[in-house]
Amino acid sequence: MRTTTGWQADGSTTTLRRTQLKRRDLRPDDLAVRVDYCGVCHTDLHAVRGHDGEAGRPLVPGHEFTGVVTETGPAVTGFSVGDPVAVGNIVDSCGECPMCRAGQENFCHAFPTLTYDGLDRQDGSTTLGGYSREYVVRDRFAYPLPAALDPAAAAPLLCAGVTVWEPLRSLGVGPDSRVAVAGLGGLGHLAAKFAVALGARTSVISRSPDKADDARRLGAHDLIVSTDPDSMAGARDRFDVVIDTISAPHDLGPYLRLVAMDGTLSHLGHLGPVTVETIDLLIGRKKLSSAGSGGRPGTAAMLAFCAEQGITADIELLPSARVNEALDRLAHNDVRYRFVLDLSDLDGDVG
Amino acid sequence: MRTTTGWQADGSTTTLRRTQLKRRDLRPDDLAVRVDYCGVCHTDLHAVRGHDGEAGRPLVPGHEFTGVVTETGPAVTGFSVGDPVAVGNIVDSCGECPMCRAGQENFCHAFPTLTYDGLDRQDGSTTLGGYSREYVVRDRFAYPLPAALDPAAAAPLLCAGVTVWEPLRSLGVGPDSRVAVAGLGGLGHLAAKFAVALGARTSVISRSPDKADDARRLGAHDLIVSTDPDSMAGARDRFDVVIDTISAPHDLGPYLRLVAMDGTLSHLGHLGPVTVETIDLLIGRKKLSSAGSGGRPGTAAMLAFCAEQGITADIELLPSARVNEALDRLAHNDVRYRFVLDLSDLDGDVG
Repeated sequence: MRTTTGWQADGSTTTLRRTQLKRRDLRPDDLAVRVDYCGVCHTDLHAVRGHDGEAGRPLVPGHEFTGVVTETGPAVTGFSVGDPVAVGNIVDSCGECPMCRAGQENFCHAFPTLTYDGLDRQDGSTTLGGYSREYVVRDRFAYPLPAALDPAAAAPLLCAGVTVWEPLRSLGVGPDSRVAVAGLGGLGHLAAKFAVALGARTSVISRSPDKADDARRLGAHDLIVSTDPDSMAGARDRFDVVIDTISAPHDLGPYLRLVAMDGTLSHLGHLGPVTVETIDLLIGRKKLSSAGSGGRPGTAAMLAFCAEQGITADIELLPSARVNEALDRLAHNDVRYRFVLDLSDLDGDVG
Repeated sequence: MRTTTGWQADGSTTTLRRTQLKRRDLRPDDLAVRVDYCGVCHTDLHAVRGHDGEAGRPLVPGHEFTGVVTETGPAVTGFSVGDPVAVGNIVDSCGECPMCRAGQENFCHAFPTLTYDGLDRQDGSTTLGGYSREYVVRDRFAYPLPAALDPAAAAPLLCAGVTVWEPLRSLGVGPDSRVAVAGLGGLGHLAAKFAVALGARTSVISRSPDKADDARRLGAHDLIVSTDPDSMAGARDRFDVVIDTISAPHDLGPYLRLVAMDGTLSHLGHLGPVTVETIDLLIGRKKLSSAGSGGRPGTAAMLAFCAEQGITADIELLPSARVNEALDRLAHNDVRYRFVLDLSDLDGDVG
């Protein structure tokens, strides 16, 4: 086994502690990656703070990271030591089911292996995430990081980015589209950038009129204020696609009413049950959908698009030692728009 | 005012009684229609038996009927006395909102005038439905009934038919499509016929394996038995479109799992809130939609398609005096597949 250092929740507390971790020895198709930057996703927050009483289980969050290849297994042909790479929230899949064959490994019928808190398909161990200085990953699930992209600001593309990219693409968003993005966090700000870059007439929906400047900076055409009935009424039936990235459970009715005839509300912000009134779908034959993560081809296409368009996340970069502060602030939506941890402070002995 | 005879619920009982009704004198763009055949819709059942304590309000159900023009207002140009016509569940709309301008009067922003229990836009009276010998309707909302169609069996096309036609068309169902129809009632059997006629590879989903012959007779390729886990598992991710016409509230999860990547579950059988697990939409980027009724162009297109393809409903034709028996049996899903009332027994004095 290899050893590295990372930030771990031990289940007895919501505070992550710096600790020594084990990584597997490289299999023939594995890469060892020095993790330089890892984004802080809402999923991480839920994983660390939502598992009450699950004491004793080692949890190391982190599933959107960039770094550099430091070693390759003997069967690896696509990567060399020194290559910049990116890894998202999936590190393996069955490879045989219809979803895997269609390049949608994120929907693998046998369930994809998650980057952390997943079950390794070969040794049955629990995967430990990217809040650590090294990660060992099967080569199929590492992506070459385009040189044009800043490695820190690119890290959030691997989860937040692809999660909004996939619905925008699968719903056919392009120059003739009208898109609204609800919620201006990690997912939302990337959805707005993507929609603008795809040529769509893009609006941002926010609870506060204060976000008008932010929306403009992201290239959006206008801001719709969800707490202002006139603003919402004026936007009725206006959008082919509404990307709803709001991270708390909420009534979807007001957002469905903004969707145009035959359009779609893509509900991405949180998992769990969601209730809609059938009539809100019926009137205008509207659709409710969701999406999450992406397959290998989609992730590669998203990275290529970002390189071409110069798109990365707007981030606050923190030394990884401030990870608990980042989680605290994320819990209060106090971030514009994504925290990224700089893991270089993990070099050296565990203190 | 004109007088006619019909079947009315008085609100104090769930039994419809034969009674004399008033119809408005013809406006310039009105037709008087002798109602020959009227389908019995689930909506009628809910209207008569679901409005507890709403005593005193005259309710005459019926919103899918065919008949013959008996008189025309002076501004009517498209119809003549003696023309066979059909009327659906909408008899007026604002005509000015984006939905009306788009030919989707069923989604009129000012709410369409329903054929019964609706509010007349000119005199504010409550509309009385087609369980009666005469109906007076604005010409825009009457459709020429193609001579190729049997008037009795065509009546259900005007509500059940267009309700399933619109999602099939808007979801692009054609020769390459894989369609499943859940629930083999008034809506479901027409959805199966339409899907087959559109060239789709069509399956029927039913709780009972007994329906295999029925499914075959409708032209379906096979039957999926929803109570058989193997049958359902074998159909996983198989359909571009699942048309769910089940009239009782039910768990949508098992039906969403039959939808293929980027496909749609169209939930038509009943109104009210519906809860889905986001993960059932997320895995495979599936969509939930609904539909109901149709606009004028869609209704006309559906009738033309039916005439061309020789499609009508499979009906049980009853004299209208047996309307209460029809409602009883419909409440127990004891009909293959739609009751149609023959209203000729209303001629003569009210007994």
